[in-house]
Amino acid sequence: MKKNIYLLGATGSIGQQTLDIIKKNPNKFNLVAFSGYNNYTRIIEIATQFKPEMVALKDKTDYSNFKQRFPDIKAVYGREGLNKLASYNKEDKSAYLVNALVGMVGLDPTLSAIKIERDILLANKETLVVGGHLINDLKKLYKFNLYPIDSEHNALWQLLDKKDKNTIKRLIITASGGAFRELNRKELETVNIEDALDHPNWSMGKKITIDSATMMNKGFEIIEACYLFDIDIEKVDTVIHKESIVHSMVEFNDGSYLAHLSKPDMHLPISYALFYPERFCTDIKKIEITDLNSLSFSKMDYQRYPCLNYAIEAFKVGGSMRTVLNAANEIAVSLFLNGKIQFLEIEKIIRTALDSHKKIDNPSLEQIYEIDNLVKSNIEKKYNR
Amino acid sequence: MKKNIYLLGATGSIGQQTLDIIKKNPNKFNLVAFSGYNNYTRIIEIATQFKPEMVALKDKTDYSNFKQRFPDIKAVYGREGLNKLASYNKEDKSAYLVNALVGMVGLDPTLSAIKIERDILLANKETLVVGGHLINDLKKLYKFNLYPIDSEHNALWQLLDKKDKNTIKRLIITASGGAFRELNRKELETVNIEDALDHPNWSMGKKITIDSATMMNKGFEIIEACYLFDIDIEKVDTVIHKESIVHSMVEFNDGSYLAHLSKPDMHLPISYALFYPERFCTDIKKIEITDLNSLSFSKMDYQRYPCLNYAIEAFKVGGSMRTVLNAANEIAVSLFLNGKIQFLEIEKIIRTALDSHKKIDNPSLEQIYEIDNLVKSNIEKKYNR
Repeated sequence: MKKNIYLLGATGSIGQQTLDIIKKNPNKFNLVAFSGYNNYTRIIEIATQFKPEMVALKDKTDYSNFKQRFPDIKAVYGREGLNKLASYNKEDKSAYLVNALVGMVGLDPTLSAIKIERDILLANKETLVVGGHLINDLKKLYKFNLYPIDSEHNALWQLLDKKDKNTIKRLIITASGGAFRELNRKELETVNIEDALDHPNWSMGKKITIDSATMMNKGFEIIEACYLFDIDIEKVDTVIHKESIVHSMVEFNDGSYLAHLSKPDMHLPISYALFYPERFCTDIKKIEITDLNSLSFSKMDYQRYPCLNYAIEAFKVGGSMRTVLNAANEIAVSLFLNGKIQFLEIEKIIRTALDSHKKIDNPSLEQIYEIDNLVKSNIEKKYNR
Repeated sequence: MKKNIYLLGATGSIGQQTLDIIKKNPNKFNLVAFSGYNNYTRIIEIATQFKPEMVALKDKTDYSNFKQRFPDIKAVYGREGLNKLASYNKEDKSAYLVNALVGMVGLDPTLSAIKIERDILLANKETLVVGGHLINDLKKLYKFNLYPIDSEHNALWQLLDKKDKNTIKRLIITASGGAFRELNRKELETVNIEDALDHPNWSMGKKITIDSATMMNKGFEIIEACYLFDIDIEKVDTVIHKESIVHSMVEFNDGSYLAHLSKPDMHLPISYALFYPERFCTDIKKIEITDLNSLSFSKMDYQRYPCLNYAIEAFKVGGSMRTVLNAANEIAVSLFLNGKIQFLEIEKIIRTALDSHKKIDNPSLEQIYEIDNLVKSNIEKKYNR
């Protein structure tokens, strides 16, 4: 039987690769619905090629244009459109929502899918960073699976699948070190946008590339791991691994480590999640083990990457502090990408936002959106001159 | 409840380490019986310390001496003694036979334990090399588990446990390269016993150290993997990995590799098997991931190590050819250790033995012993001058 796919964020890097896999496996998958945001031309191409039942667009203008061109395709738009898409065809439960959105906007549709007990393939880290506690609450009410397609967490899933959690000593997430791994703190003061977007090992979306350079991305991934694998943050660690071949490791109580190795290619974790529990013979370039002659690991320098500490701190404080962490980071990265602030101002903005927030425990979705808006608008007022 | 342990080969390297673990975990394990061979002093020590119910000795002389000293301990001796020990206390089924014997002598007691449905922790490679087909036959008649404590196969077990076999592309066993890994074929002509026993990464029994230098050990391990994991020999590979940190890897159909890493310390695989499905917090030295800065892998040079090819060839031809392989190897290694032949004569002796044998399909245990004796005595006649 074909698996129906509801894809959020089809025009981004993960979305594109998900479409590659769907396209190559027409007997296995069927794209029922997708969302796109800025790239309208690409949205038209995808709609033409896949003929979905529903498309979610950015705003009313795109919606109207789209309806004119594709009168037979159901169209929706805006934040509400993403929710409609995520829970479209309520009865279709052997389907997957692939959430490849960027930023906190991914949270609400995840919750919508959970409430109709639809399984979710999650690339959107912010869903868990900001709303991990909400998802935990829903676990008691609904039956659903949350499968990670982030490469590190997908690797952990492969390593931990069917293993006894009590045997785990530590989860280890590897980090390439990002664009500025060879620079010292002094040198970081003068880096520009082009430098920041030049990731040493691969190309991906702009936001996550900057998050990699600040190491906030690993901070998010540590939080994500805590929620996904229900594990204490003291048991999650990250190490620098420049070669990006080992994606994660699990240290067990007895001194054994299990590691996941592959080419850094997102087709692999996406395929693993889509085909699970099978492993489909993908056509990604495979590593030749005997070509590996200097796999190396080194300690993470927490002084050099304060964002990593901020993420861990926000998780430990908990509640709405995680919303502030994410909101301040989203807006700061956006300001940097728009040339409004220097690279090192990103971390300063986040630090200030965390310091000036008074935590609320277990914030509701509404409170999360309020805090998110407040934090973002405060920062924007100050810096977006 | 305590697990009862029946230990074959208590005075060897694996046996000693098994005793370490039993001694440190008196609430978990109880040594019911053990065998020893040449080291009578050590046998006395173990019997004094562990107060077992039964001890298996080398011969009638040792037996008589032992009975005089320990009239309350049941004593047996010789090959028949090993069988009695392996199947002693037939009703004690939640027990383990730990088979840490060296050489083909380990096969018969393994079969005896299987016939009383006792689970086996297997370090004795020759059991599977020579008698893998017999064990396969018994699988249809008896219920038992065969858990590997060879480090490479134990690592594969950890990696494959509860995974779907259909997803496997290849099992990869790592090889340190042995004592002579830096020498070329010409230089191998003049190596002596002391050089051969100087393993670069660890110390173990003499026979297996020589098997490592000739790479016959990896040949045996490939055969072992085929039987243990019911996998085609074309899907088992070996690579040189000088650091001996990665013990095995599994390549899956989708391009993912899972690897097992740890300090090379046999306490770990023995503990894993003894405590399975738990992982006990052992006190072995653990690797610090961030100290690993040049893990390397390189292709196995099959030209340089003909014994590896002979093993693969013997497995493919099958039947009694595996008995000849092992018998010729056992006697040739023994002749080398006794200074009767040069290092490179080991492989020549094995080649000649394989070439002059006419294969019997599915040899019985009796036929295996006959062939073993014949091959060994022919070689001994020629070389033991």
